[in-house]
Amino acid sequence: MSDSNSKLTHLNDAGQPAMVDVGGKAVTRRVARARSRVVLGTDILALVQHGDLPTRKGPVFQTAILAGIMAAKKTADLIPLCHPLGLDDCQVTIQVAPPEAVVIECTATVTGKTGVEMEALTGASVAALTIYDMCKALSHNIVIEHTRLLSKTGGKSDYHYQDE
Amino acid sequence: MSDSNSKLTHLNDAGQPAMVDVGGKAVTRRVARARSRVVLGTDILALVQHGDLPTRKGPVFQTAILAGIMAAKKTADLIPLCHPLGLDDCQVTIQVAPPEAVVIECTATVTGKTGVEMEALTGASVAALTIYDMCKALSHNIVIEHTRLLSKTGGKSDYHYQDE
Amino acid sequence: MSDSNSKLTHLNDAGQPAMVDVGGKAVTRRVARARSRVVLGTDILALVQHGDLPTRKGPVFQTAILAGIMAAKKTADLIPLCHPLGLDDCQVTIQVAPPEAVVIECTATVTGKTGVEMEALTGASVAALTIYDMCKALSHNIVIEHTRLLSKTGGKSDYHYQDE
Amino acid sequence: MSDSNSKLTHLNDAGQPAMVDVGGKAVTRRVARARSRVVLGTDILALVQHGDLPTRKGPVFQTAILAGIMAAKKTADLIPLCHPLGLDDCQVTIQVAPPEAVVIECTATVTGKTGVEMEALTGASVAALTIYDMCKALSHNIVIEHTRLLSKTGGKSDYHYQDE
Amino acid sequence: MSDSNSKLTHLNDAGQPAMVDVGGKAVTRRVARARSRVVLGTDILALVQHGDLPTRKGPVFQTAILAGIMAAKKTADLIPLCHPLGLDDCQVTIQVAPPEAVVIECTATVTGKTGVEMEALTGASVAALTIYDMCKALSHNIVIEHTRLLSKTGGKSDYHYQDE
Amino acid sequence: MSDSNSKLTHLNDAGQPAMVDVGGKAVTRRVARARSRVVLGTDILALVQHGDLPTRKGPVFQTAILAGIMAAKKTADLIPLCHPLGLDDCQVTIQVAPPEAVVIECTATVTGKTGVEMEALTGASVAALTIYDMCKALSHNIVIEHTRLLSKTGGKSDYHYQDE
Repeated sequence: MSDSNSKLTHLNDAGQPAMVDVGGKAVTRRVARARSRVVLGTDILALVQHGDLPTRKGPVFQTAILAGIMAAKKTADLIPLCHPLGLDDCQVTIQVAPPEAVVIECTATVTGKTGVEMEALTGASVAALTIYDMCKALSHNIVIEHTRLLSKTGGKSDYHYQDE
Repeated sequence: MSDSNSKLTHLNDAGQPAMVDVGGKAVTRRVARARSRVVLGTDILALVQHGDLPTRKGPVFQTAILAGIMAAKKTADLIPLCHPLGLDDCQVTIQVAPPEAVVIECTATVTGKTGVEMEALTGASVAALTIYDMCKALSHNIVIEHTRLLSKTGGKSDYHYQDE
Repeated sequence: MSDSNSKLTHLNDAGQPAMVDVGGKAVTRRVARARSRVVLGTDILALVQHGDLPTRKGPVFQTAILAGIMAAKKTADLIPLCHPLGLDDCQVTIQVAPPEAVVIECTATVTGKTGVEMEALTGASVAALTIYDMCKALSHNIVIEHTRLLSKTGGKSDYHYQDE
Repeated sequence: MSDSNSKLTHLNDAGQPAMVDVGGKAVTRRVARARSRVVLGTDILALVQHGDLPTRKGPVFQTAILAGIMAAKKTADLIPLCHPLGLDDCQVTIQVAPPEAVVIECTATVTGKTGVEMEALTGASVAALTIYDMCKALSHNIVIEHTRLLSKTGGKSDYHYQDE
Repeated sequence: MSDSNSKLTHLNDAGQPAMVDVGGKAVTRRVARARSRVVLGTDILALVQHGDLPTRKGPVFQTAILAGIMAAKKTADLIPLCHPLGLDDCQVTIQVAPPEAVVIECTATVTGKTGVEMEALTGASVAALTIYDMCKALSHNIVIEHTRLLSKTGGKSDYHYQDE
Repeated sequence: MSDSNSKLTHLNDAGQPAMVDVGGKAVTRRVARARSRVVLGTDILALVQHGDLPTRKGPVFQTAILAGIMAAKKTADLIPLCHPLGLDDCQVTIQVAPPEAVVIECTATVTGKTGVEMEALTGASVAALTIYDMCKALSHNIVIEHTRLLSKTGGKSDYHYQDE
């Protein structure tokens, strides 16, 4: 954490919540990628795989993918101080991670003045919640884990998660 | 996972996504409580505490609390197969969990025919995302962890997370 | 068209748009079913069938089903004078109607004071628009036809489309 | 201001924002009526009257009426701690108040556990903003004035504005 | 249907639903025009004309026009894989088509990287649904017919419906 | 009111509501500032000050600030003929105006083809409504007064309220 940015940018001098003015920032192609992991347990994972493996695009995953994309488009409605912006693209993928989890990745892309980290994180989170919703009749011991940013590019400084 | 409910209730006989008809369910007072943990790192946690400790209700937490409550009200817009419903109440609390995390709890309450687990989980998740958004200028190594249900009561069967 | 209801209920005495007060109506279980038909043409229908027939729940249809359900939940946001209400259930099905069309049915159910015809019609319409969106790279000669109510029950008077 | 209610109900014991639990309140028919006044100036008022008087339901007023009704339905999306609820009815009326103003009234009605003051006030406010929007090419000296509650009935205690 | 575009662009290589990346497309002025036809029957059409003919802009039509414009602005919320974008303009017109129908046209315009066909079609569809809603107390035999694109310009290739 | 603009731009030649095509307007940095005043009465103002004075950013004001910012982002959803657009920035401030009022200012900024007066006015109005909501348990004699534009710059002509 460098000194140069060690302040909470969403609070103004009076300590009140505030948006950040992006009017002076450059319009660039910005991409952010986020990941979330849903631990379903071995029993549910087997069931989900059973229904989905023949095509690897079964209905639970597809519902979650669509929910994630639609939520990424709603990010500025959900996160109070996010800027409203368009999106060039939003992709959500879901992979089975045996023995008990699935891994969601959401990649958001914009040509604009501000990054899309929150769009990627929101897309991944809502896709995870949707998997939870569709499986919760089977168990309430499902846990959404390790929602985090994997990378962002196109802004003032790039970021890449070191474990990648 | 009992046999009696070992099917994905959100898929119909044709394997297509479907809502669950709750028309025949009893109207009861239903409460669900969910938790999420945001690992900010020790540096950011110190900063957040510094700004918030005098009042214990500082702006980062308050913004996240409001975002969580507002998101809980939007659950049926975000989760494709959730029923639209009112809420009697929604409470979000955020506690500092030294040395490096904060813990969010969201409790949703309804008098209705269907539970509010997804409302509680959505509220906790969006509160967590909002904390991320307000702190992300400081670090992108923030991780949202262990989003899970703590308890649900008022439906056909209660649930209490065993570690509680 | 009987005399007893031959007025536009959504205009008040001054001729201005107005909601209808449903406060005095009985709370009953109300079901409405609507249908829409999308004429894709024989080439696209073959393609859609090719991708979807192995599972009969392919991605175009599933995306449209989810869009229809989510739109039904947003009906009061879209139709200015509709009452906001919950839904007990909403089901969307899509059938191939060779040689060139698909048929969408949307069934909405509520326990409430007012019918859900508009929810069923909105769900069918948005499912149809979503099929259009997903197929429009292939042709812009797609036509959405014959969106209509098939039946409604549970209100003051039932309705059943005679051709059914 | 009586002692019995002299606290800010939307802050919990820790001073953080919170919803009020309405689970234990009685389901009653509740009506709230609010008013807002838009001072357009004599020139614009003449113009609006010219276009609208023949039918008394001209397009500026109708657009504002519809915007007000639709906004009343969105109140829980706009006001952070409002409960989501249905509406039995919502009526917006607009009267010319020569020489320079129009007066908007919005009446919201629900059968539920909590009042609809905010729905009535939000409907009146957004109707006023819509009139502003449609007239702002003529002048930016338009002022929205005296937005206030006129009456509420059906809750624990009724309220009637004394000047009525 | 040319070979060059004979694939469903909204499905990725794994057959899962996906947005189309428009980041590399040119920013141009794009216009799309769509039409929908509502068959009201001769009795209702007479009634609608009676109320509206003096001004040809009566309340049913105006409500539908506003609903269509507002829905066009919500297209990306309704159609799962549509890009969120601004609009330079959106116009909805409604014409009486004796003896029994009305014809809606919606024209959407953007300066952007992707077309607005879905905005035009969504605007026309929701205007049609609104007419249905306002007339449904008179009859449930109303049918929304022939919703289709009339033209699109400004993208890689123009389209004009041949019957125009 | 000059002759050159003495028409209601939101009505087309047929007198029907219509958006204004902004496609040909220049992309400029546009700023609008609006103000609203909430008359709480001396008792409530004292209470609000008591809770907030130590930090001058207490929870009532912060909730209202966030509600105002979020509402400004929803302007095109609320005002029927407003263009959907992004925002570079939105700031809401609230000052105590003894003996009985608070004053809200909302400043909206965009780089675009159309002004953000309605965003600023909507942000100020919803912040005012939120203060009302959080204080209404204390009194229903709260009045929202004098919501108006203070300035706009960056468009064809600037505007500055003369009393400023």
